[in-house]
Amino acid sequence: MDTPERLAQEEKGTAGFLSDTAVSHIGLTVPDIDATEKFYLRVLGLVRQTELPNGVRLGWGPHGHHVVDLFQGPKGLAYYGFEVRDENGIAGLRGRLFEAGVEFADMNPEDITAPAGMPEGITFTDPDGTRVHFHSQVQRQGETTSDSGRRPVKFQHTTLGTSDVARMVDFYTTIVGFRISDQLRDGNFCWLRSDKDHHTLAVVFTGKGGDLDHYSYDLAEWEDFKAWCDRLTVLNVDVAWGPGRHGPGNNLFVFFNDPAGNHIELSAEMEKFYDDRVNYLPRVWNPIPNSVNLWGGQLPRWRKVSEGNPV
Amino acid sequence: MDTPERLAQEEKGTAGFLSDTAVSHIGLTVPDIDATEKFYLRVLGLVRQTELPNGVRLGWGPHGHHVVDLFQGPKGLAYYGFEVRDENGIAGLRGRLFEAGVEFADMNPEDITAPAGMPEGITFTDPDGTRVHFHSQVQRQGETTSDSGRRPVKFQHTTLGTSDVARMVDFYTTIVGFRISDQLRDGNFCWLRSDKDHHTLAVVFTGKGGDLDHYSYDLAEWEDFKAWCDRLTVLNVDVAWGPGRHGPGNNLFVFFNDPAGNHIELSAEMEKFYDDRVNYLPRVWNPIPNSVNLWGGQLPRWRKVSEGNPV
Amino acid sequence: MDTPERLAQEEKGTAGFLSDTAVSHIGLTVPDIDATEKFYLRVLGLVRQTELPNGVRLGWGPHGHHVVDLFQGPKGLAYYGFEVRDENGIAGLRGRLFEAGVEFADMNPEDITAPAGMPEGITFTDPDGTRVHFHSQVQRQGETTSDSGRRPVKFQHTTLGTSDVARMVDFYTTIVGFRISDQLRDGNFCWLRSDKDHHTLAVVFTGKGGDLDHYSYDLAEWEDFKAWCDRLTVLNVDVAWGPGRHGPGNNLFVFFNDPAGNHIELSAEMEKFYDDRVNYLPRVWNPIPNSVNLWGGQLPRWRKVSEGNPV
Amino acid sequence: MDTPERLAQEEKGTAGFLSDTAVSHIGLTVPDIDATEKFYLRVLGLVRQTELPNGVRLGWGPHGHHVVDLFQGPKGLAYYGFEVRDENGIAGLRGRLFEAGVEFADMNPEDITAPAGMPEGITFTDPDGTRVHFHSQVQRQGETTSDSGRRPVKFQHTTLGTSDVARMVDFYTTIVGFRISDQLRDGNFCWLRSDKDHHTLAVVFTGKGGDLDHYSYDLAEWEDFKAWCDRLTVLNVDVAWGPGRHGPGNNLFVFFNDPAGNHIELSAEMEKFYDDRVNYLPRVWNPIPNSVNLWGGQLPRWRKVSEGNPV
Amino acid sequence: MDTPERLAQEEKGTAGFLSDTAVSHIGLTVPDIDATEKFYLRVLGLVRQTELPNGVRLGWGPHGHHVVDLFQGPKGLAYYGFEVRDENGIAGLRGRLFEAGVEFADMNPEDITAPAGMPEGITFTDPDGTRVHFHSQVQRQGETTSDSGRRPVKFQHTTLGTSDVARMVDFYTTIVGFRISDQLRDGNFCWLRSDKDHHTLAVVFTGKGGDLDHYSYDLAEWEDFKAWCDRLTVLNVDVAWGPGRHGPGNNLFVFFNDPAGNHIELSAEMEKFYDDRVNYLPRVWNPIPNSVNLWGGQLPRWRKVSEGNPV
Amino acid sequence: MDTPERLAQEEKGTAGFLSDTAVSHIGLTVPDIDATEKFYLRVLGLVRQTELPNGVRLGWGPHGHHVVDLFQGPKGLAYYGFEVRDENGIAGLRGRLFEAGVEFADMNPEDITAPAGMPEGITFTDPDGTRVHFHSQVQRQGETTSDSGRRPVKFQHTTLGTSDVARMVDFYTTIVGFRISDQLRDGNFCWLRSDKDHHTLAVVFTGKGGDLDHYSYDLAEWEDFKAWCDRLTVLNVDVAWGPGRHGPGNNLFVFFNDPAGNHIELSAEMEKFYDDRVNYLPRVWNPIPNSVNLWGGQLPRWRKVSEGNPV
Repeated sequence: MDTPERLAQEEKGTAGFLSDTAVSHIGLTVPDIDATEKFYLRVLGLVRQTELPNGVRLGWGPHGHHVVDLFQGPKGLAYYGFEVRDENGIAGLRGRLFEAGVEFADMNPEDITAPAGMPEGITFTDPDGTRVHFHSQVQRQGETTSDSGRRPVKFQHTTLGTSDVARMVDFYTTIVGFRISDQLRDGNFCWLRSDKDHHTLAVVFTGKGGDLDHYSYDLAEWEDFKAWCDRLTVLNVDVAWGPGRHGPGNNLFVFFNDPAGNHIELSAEMEKFYDDRVNYLPRVWNPIPNSVNLWGGQLPRWRKVSEGNPV
Repeated sequence: MDTPERLAQEEKGTAGFLSDTAVSHIGLTVPDIDATEKFYLRVLGLVRQTELPNGVRLGWGPHGHHVVDLFQGPKGLAYYGFEVRDENGIAGLRGRLFEAGVEFADMNPEDITAPAGMPEGITFTDPDGTRVHFHSQVQRQGETTSDSGRRPVKFQHTTLGTSDVARMVDFYTTIVGFRISDQLRDGNFCWLRSDKDHHTLAVVFTGKGGDLDHYSYDLAEWEDFKAWCDRLTVLNVDVAWGPGRHGPGNNLFVFFNDPAGNHIELSAEMEKFYDDRVNYLPRVWNPIPNSVNLWGGQLPRWRKVSEGNPV
Repeated sequence: MDTPERLAQEEKGTAGFLSDTAVSHIGLTVPDIDATEKFYLRVLGLVRQTELPNGVRLGWGPHGHHVVDLFQGPKGLAYYGFEVRDENGIAGLRGRLFEAGVEFADMNPEDITAPAGMPEGITFTDPDGTRVHFHSQVQRQGETTSDSGRRPVKFQHTTLGTSDVARMVDFYTTIVGFRISDQLRDGNFCWLRSDKDHHTLAVVFTGKGGDLDHYSYDLAEWEDFKAWCDRLTVLNVDVAWGPGRHGPGNNLFVFFNDPAGNHIELSAEMEKFYDDRVNYLPRVWNPIPNSVNLWGGQLPRWRKVSEGNPV
Repeated sequence: MDTPERLAQEEKGTAGFLSDTAVSHIGLTVPDIDATEKFYLRVLGLVRQTELPNGVRLGWGPHGHHVVDLFQGPKGLAYYGFEVRDENGIAGLRGRLFEAGVEFADMNPEDITAPAGMPEGITFTDPDGTRVHFHSQVQRQGETTSDSGRRPVKFQHTTLGTSDVARMVDFYTTIVGFRISDQLRDGNFCWLRSDKDHHTLAVVFTGKGGDLDHYSYDLAEWEDFKAWCDRLTVLNVDVAWGPGRHGPGNNLFVFFNDPAGNHIELSAEMEKFYDDRVNYLPRVWNPIPNSVNLWGGQLPRWRKVSEGNPV
Repeated sequence: MDTPERLAQEEKGTAGFLSDTAVSHIGLTVPDIDATEKFYLRVLGLVRQTELPNGVRLGWGPHGHHVVDLFQGPKGLAYYGFEVRDENGIAGLRGRLFEAGVEFADMNPEDITAPAGMPEGITFTDPDGTRVHFHSQVQRQGETTSDSGRRPVKFQHTTLGTSDVARMVDFYTTIVGFRISDQLRDGNFCWLRSDKDHHTLAVVFTGKGGDLDHYSYDLAEWEDFKAWCDRLTVLNVDVAWGPGRHGPGNNLFVFFNDPAGNHIELSAEMEKFYDDRVNYLPRVWNPIPNSVNLWGGQLPRWRKVSEGNPV
Repeated sequence: MDTPERLAQEEKGTAGFLSDTAVSHIGLTVPDIDATEKFYLRVLGLVRQTELPNGVRLGWGPHGHHVVDLFQGPKGLAYYGFEVRDENGIAGLRGRLFEAGVEFADMNPEDITAPAGMPEGITFTDPDGTRVHFHSQVQRQGETTSDSGRRPVKFQHTTLGTSDVARMVDFYTTIVGFRISDQLRDGNFCWLRSDKDHHTLAVVFTGKGGDLDHYSYDLAEWEDFKAWCDRLTVLNVDVAWGPGRHGPGNNLFVFFNDPAGNHIELSAEMEKFYDDRVNYLPRVWNPIPNSVNLWGGQLPRWRKVSEGNPV
């Protein structure tokens, strides 16, 4: 099979790599927007910042950049965004997109809520046709203070489902400027980084492009996993997978679903990559359960990993 | 004695039971409102949300539902409130109150601060004549995010002093829809639940109806008890009881007083009840110090528990 | 069905109840005794205390009462033992066994290793024909010091597989002097206590008597679960179930297997029962996955819980 | 040398001592105000509260008293402030300043942001000519709630560089009402307290008056030091000194620099002084590295401590 | 009153001060030696090392220096011991005793169990007539390893009851070589150090000489206090005082009694004194409950502290 | 320069790789054996197991495999040892040594203390002429139980000083069967693994072969670093470097010296390598201080890292 071979190659250069770019927000369409908003208010602790046409905008508090936009509609991924803190990061991205012939446009400044300085942003579609946002630094009240201590929630990464992992990875590493941290040998799962975290974006084969596989918030530490599992139980939310520990990223995890059926991950202890001082080569993992969950390979019903079958 | 026998009976049905209802706010009249407000600002970390006629409204921050209303006057309990998240919970309560011939009225919407969706609420007096509020879901900024982590303060339960424990328990279990979790054998103390917490309301014989015995905030964990005891000492507030562990509820506790003399409890590790999957029968505790404080039965001056005397 | 009704009854009296009796040791026959001993030395940290005919005796150190006896043979449960610290506990048990017509004999003093004072013990077979030991106080070096702190391992309970749960429960509550703490409504699982722990013995329907379902060691706290899951992974031992939290007992758990296929549980935060100050009635749980694992009902392959099928 | 002898004397009386006065805010001039503001937003988690003439005002959130004022200019200390919670504290200070012939004026009420009650404040210059603020109680949202739990950041003390330690200490103990907690024997470093913390102000010989030596924020506990060192590394901020433990104050510490080169300390476990119940005499430390860092005397390049040389 | 004045003086010199000397063992006479031994085995986790004439010798394990000697008899203090690690510490002590005309003799080498190197020891009686041991370095298996981590138990200090505090303090500071760390103003309680711990010996006025007031073991940290309070409760041992925090020594504490009625303290976070780098003057505390327990002055029945009465 | 290029290559095959082999013991010659033994007894908590000709053998307790052998002599490294748990690991090593023409002999069985099963071992000299031991599984009492919990001490790795890093790495990877985990780009430091730990052996250029650079014990977690730094200070042992975090291995560290001047490291959170499920390529680090200590590149006097100079 060609795919894993191609993926396993080393990145060709570092000129355009992003190294201070993080996930920023996500837009979801959901069948029951009222129930879903109440869930995010109560379970995640988000608050409604403002109403949107056909939707609502939620954040960690009334101030600071928004986190989740919900729209009424069939379950789907409306868009996902990144905050670029790299110096000249957006300018460089513009250049690479132009060179590659990818169409892009300026973001609506209203979607760069709580900017730090002059807001700047561009938007384009990824190879699966999903809209993406890359914008300049924002104030992340709630997140900024929480990641320095024990408060548990920061939006940390997005994992896309796709029908063509190689195409997505190629787009993100060659044009956008992400690096490969880890991958499964069969080419069905690939983890990409754009700052010191092991991944801010991952891509997994699900047979259908334009999908959200799951998305993830950071917890401060292991102790919070017990608190969260107990708390979810008290809130009548089933823990769906874990606690466990991923091989790629080495992060602790636990999963549960929102009312629309989106898989939400809570994560901690993610491996850091210091590209400013060390040269990494992407690792290649055996596509077996014990890679995806180091703790005995325990899996939920919806995550299948095997040699012969799609992940 | 009849009382404990009557209390010890199993609840008769679950039709009207509340299972997702929590304490919401409390109103206190205090002799020195300035000193008391400063105490709550500094010691508890509440902030003034707004002025009230003859009083002030305090919350965990400028946003979210309020927590404590203070009014100038002799020390007393003005009202206490509950947030009903049960589906059709308020409608059912209306019906049961009407059937029992208990007068009730709609709450002033202004007292349902920070509603989630359309605010709805009813108010009536408990058998001791104290005003009670039951209202629909509110945004609990501060609380929602804090109880998922280490920030220490959430308003968790109210304990009423009364001259007739049986009458209060009867009212709350038969009409309002609470369940009995624990009780002392002599009928002088009874703990009631309305969600998965062991109690959100308790009733203790103090010889005088319409009184507040104490009220309680949640801490995240044991480690916070040392931090709080040290912090209270630095703030020139005497620790009045504990740290210790209650028998009923199994919760860790520590007590101190506000400037009006109200006993404030900090609590953690309260036992959970999973009525959706297990059938509980109320437990009956010996009315001895070692029941009230598992750790050697150490008591403060103001809490007396004995076979022959009132609690 | 009669079984659960019968089980759900309250215990008839407390005259013969044991209240200071704990698990003591276990004897297992295993197909590959060398590999199994090496596993217990390395993974559990036990040490070989002495050789036995056709077997070895393992303990927490060279001193103190032994914990696991291993014998060469097909996988099976050779015997299980309890340490009776109740005053006149063994004398009372002798009387009740005699009255019930159960044959018993004095234990071989050599099997009461590290006695505290004069060793005394009796042995008989349980209704499934498995040999049981009840003996006087022993020195539990390793356990005694460890359960006061963070060292993780103390042998805490034995869970027997049986084809007749009711018969086993009847024997242990009526004659031996255990109390029922919890049970599933369909009568297929029952948890019994003989000291302040929620259970020191449990009985589950597996269709075959004389079996070990699993046995369990105590960890000090949640933090140790991460350390153990990581450590087991490094030692090439698969985590088989968990971490999770049981409904009955409320204890945190994680499971793995020894080389003979015995399920080993690590547990923490088990609920305590204070029979000296409170009257408990056995609870009745719905036989559903969410009872057995509060965290979303996640189960391993070998633990089935359902209304229609055997557990 | 006279200095240490004079410093080593006991304080003469307690009439004017402040015992409930804490640091409040600090004003810094910095060469690159944009980069410095972005640093404080991202690294410390402060937010911009308002613009100032030639500067910006930062706080823990949009509400509550401000923490850091930044002004465009060469690196320097513009002013430093204290919040006086002592009863009649400001009145007493007015009296002592007047008696000593020190000029003072009323503070601009706009600089007493988020007052609790009527704002009152006075301003004067310290012996080195730096402007100081002493004002009445303010709402410290963020700080008030955080110091009761695990959130890591509270502004805790200011350490001034000076060319005349004795003159500064004399001014603060004789007129302003601070107490000496600790000092180096050679008179080059002195730690002063105005509440139960070991020091809220310190003075060190740097050869030049009107300087900031460093200033410090509180962390909740040791565990946060690892989180902060890792977080600073991820944010490309070098840890400059520590973690270590100071002799005077016994506090854990770690240091890093802001873009202007100001040394910022994070601190925890600072010793408390209970002047209401015990009589302390200032301690005298040997001026050696092992006094300044108990853990082996490890020092950064910019902190020199020796018998013969200036600190 | 003369006593406190005399105590409050500074120590005269450091020539003979011990700075590396710690408590070593204690000998108690108890009415029911069997029950008391079983208590120490089970509750403290000590093991029997050997039999003594009319008694037993207990230690942390079968190896290492012994900790508690129990003898049959009326409740009393048989002797207490110290391990001298100071270079030439015993030789110096010999000299000072000789100079002061205090009779002493060589210790029986059998009582210096597990010596490190050649055992050397002297014995004499304190001013109240109780026998004291000072001996050379021993192997402290159990203690040595535990105080570097979380295992909870190390014998840390002895507090003597006396009818003449001044005489005892004079003897220990002038002749034996201890330093005063803290004292109550009325002269009724004095804490003495012989290494970096705030006290290894304390003396309290109880009206009767030759008594043990209490003795104390170290726990590693606050988290262990919950574990111990819960564990004592499960073992049917009443927590008698605390958890709390002492003013003098700043240590966290909890107390319980052995079957003979001896008060046993568990302690953590004791203040350290670095006499090698700082000059301390003894502090003088107000004799009030809030000095003895910083957390609100909560006291047990047997500890009375007041201005007018004996402690 | 050739060295780094050669080191940076991928390993050629896995046929002979060891994957379950750990450090076992170390032999040191020291100028003052009495002081050094006392240091290891008191500071590390080792105990004397037996006397050796011209030396002593120390272990974690009287039982289990020994850890440190001390011999009287000038400071030097006498030998270092590994325990091989790989199946047929020693047989394979014999074969590879024979094939490579390296002389080897059977170990003296007396040096394989506390064997698990039949002891087997071989000994040879490394390219720098230092004696090495590889032996079969031993009982590691103390270590086995401690690494499952919080007890802090396990011997974890040895770092050799050498004049020829490439030759040592070549020997260990080609013949002995270790893998390269990390290396500095200039070829002056290389970390090798033989089980799931990032390294069990490291080699650093010091200009002189046959040297010990440092050796390391594991702590359970970050919390222990504060306890150890405080404890070392109390024991008059200077912390020499750290706490900090290494880039290669990602482990937390702190260093101090034994009386002979050997650098001792305490370490935690070392990165794990799962060669059974993922393919790693050795990473190449820039030889800068910020690689060796991620926290700001703080270094001790004796560790120099720079581009132009030897490490």
